[in-house]
Amino acid sequence: MSLTRLLLVLDFGGTKLTAAVAVPGGRAWEDRRQARSPEGATAQTDLELACRLAREMLPGQTPAAIGVSFGGPVAGERGVVRLSHHVPGWENFPLAERLQGELGAPAVVENDANAAALGEWRYGAGQGCDSLLYITVSTGVGGGWIVNGGLWRGADGLAGEIGHLVLRPEGPLCTCGKRGCVEALAAGPYVAALARDVLLARPSEGALLRARAQGDVSRLTAEQVALAAQDGDSLAWQALSEAARALGQGIGAALALMNPQRVVVGGGVAKSGERYWQVMREAAAGWTQGMPAPRVEIVPAALGDDAPLWGAAALAEALWRTEDGS
Amino acid sequence: MSLTRLLLVLDFGGTKLTAAVAVPGGRAWEDRRQARSPEGATAQTDLELACRLAREMLPGQTPAAIGVSFGGPVAGERGVVRLSHHVPGWENFPLAERLQGELGAPAVVENDANAAALGEWRYGAGQGCDSLLYITVSTGVGGGWIVNGGLWRGADGLAGEIGHLVLRPEGPLCTCGKRGCVEALAAGPYVAALARDVLLARPSEGALLRARAQGDVSRLTAEQVALAAQDGDSLAWQALSEAARALGQGIGAALALMNPQRVVVGGGVAKSGERYWQVMREAAAGWTQGMPAPRVEIVPAALGDDAPLWGAAALAEALWRTEDGS
Repeated sequence: MSLTRLLLVLDFGGTKLTAAVAVPGGRAWEDRRQARSPEGATAQTDLELACRLAREMLPGQTPAAIGVSFGGPVAGERGVVRLSHHVPGWENFPLAERLQGELGAPAVVENDANAAALGEWRYGAGQGCDSLLYITVSTGVGGGWIVNGGLWRGADGLAGEIGHLVLRPEGPLCTCGKRGCVEALAAGPYVAALARDVLLARPSEGALLRARAQGDVSRLTAEQVALAAQDGDSLAWQALSEAARALGQGIGAALALMNPQRVVVGGGVAKSGERYWQVMREAAAGWTQGMPAPRVEIVPAALGDDAPLWGAAALAEALWRTEDGS
Repeated sequence: MSLTRLLLVLDFGGTKLTAAVAVPGGRAWEDRRQARSPEGATAQTDLELACRLAREMLPGQTPAAIGVSFGGPVAGERGVVRLSHHVPGWENFPLAERLQGELGAPAVVENDANAAALGEWRYGAGQGCDSLLYITVSTGVGGGWIVNGGLWRGADGLAGEIGHLVLRPEGPLCTCGKRGCVEALAAGPYVAALARDVLLARPSEGALLRARAQGDVSRLTAEQVALAAQDGDSLAWQALSEAARALGQGIGAALALMNPQRVVVGGGVAKSGERYWQVMREAAAGWTQGMPAPRVEIVPAALGDDAPLWGAAALAEALWRTEDGS
């Protein structure tokens, strides 16, 4: 029907923005560009940045459809952003409508964890299964569901908050205000903080971890903790295995409630090595004791940081097919 | 196509069996009978009892289809019973196949919580909503899901185990072997046990509760605890509100993970009065602090003990329409 058949795909990641172009049905990007949100960025400047990247990649062309992954809650089928935890001005921002106005193509906006779940299901580690829980473990813990043959967003677009299940009612304070949430036990900054606290309390231990921190324990990262644990640092392993156990228990709760066929775990912290995965899987299995054991596979994500983009590409393609009547 | 258009509906409830007959599309039973499983019952004697009730209600007739609710886990679309916690001999019992052999009609078997979820969704307190969590709180705590326009059984038929989410890792031992599960905090026998323990520890308190127990504290029931709480017994209310809070927290976890539009709560313990519901709802809302609040309704079940039967009727009708090609 139309000469333009390229899909525009955007990922508003909080501090960075990724834009890519794909052919419908394609499995590789025709083009892909990334930019950092500048200091003092707002919703408006992020939108302008996205449009600039889009016009650079598609000079003089109108995309067939636009698919967007957004790092925050999104309302409605086509997408009004509710808010961003990183950038001001996103409150009730009609992003799909604004993109259509700027770029002349229909747009669909989805929360990043949902988009990543869809991406992994269609093109990644979730291919061929009927139901899955996607979890991303990085600075926070988010999730998205595929159930009964499609994305399950929840009645208000809020499904998948596995990061805010409470596991230790007396545990560390979470950003949400509750204590002992999965996120407050398993996300990167909490793993780093736990390791840091133990390092400060036991000045004669954790030599390998201190070496990874290059002398500045206050700036320790979860990645350094994972590397030190792999080096054999028992203090680092203690912090890391605590995080793996918490994540596994959260997964166990999701298994008991929903019994998905597969759980796909991505995000930086999920790259913490085989022992981390073993503890996580054992903790998940522990939750189904006394019940018939579900035959779930808990597997690493396959698409890395591109999972939300691929999900957004799938959404853009579906939107284009609907609009095109084909 | 056929002259017989009556659906046979069965509920294997553990210790009691209910059989009913309905016209497809009907909203009232044509006939409904109940029988207790005798002492020493087995899967085989329960099956024979069900067939006898069926033949009494449908003399000389073959039902159009058979829908079954079973009080235990069921595998597969059409239904092989995995086990019963109450009656021996149900391990991997091909109930649908056996009923078809005995009664000459196609049969579909569903777990009771799933059947009740379907029943409430189609004919009860869940009508008109797109997603719901059904919870039954009686001797145990079970659940069933409607998601993305249909029943969600889970990949292995095990979804809905809200009773076995762990809320208090140091809490009371649950039948499943874990500690502090929703079931071990909110189900009837645990409410009664908690109240009993406090009565025994404080011999001068709980006069109204002791009166309800008619002098035999060892046989105290959750219903007596609820009635004493309504009478104004503070000790009874302490036990009951603890149970309501635990159930609400379990619901809160389900809201965070799945964001259903409605939660329908049935079972005997859910009839514990308005204050019980208030504490439950507040505890559920507490789980979504720091996140956009979902607009969920938490409402009482409408169909009482007949919810699984009505779900089984819906399944029988769907099966009959499929088989009939209409």
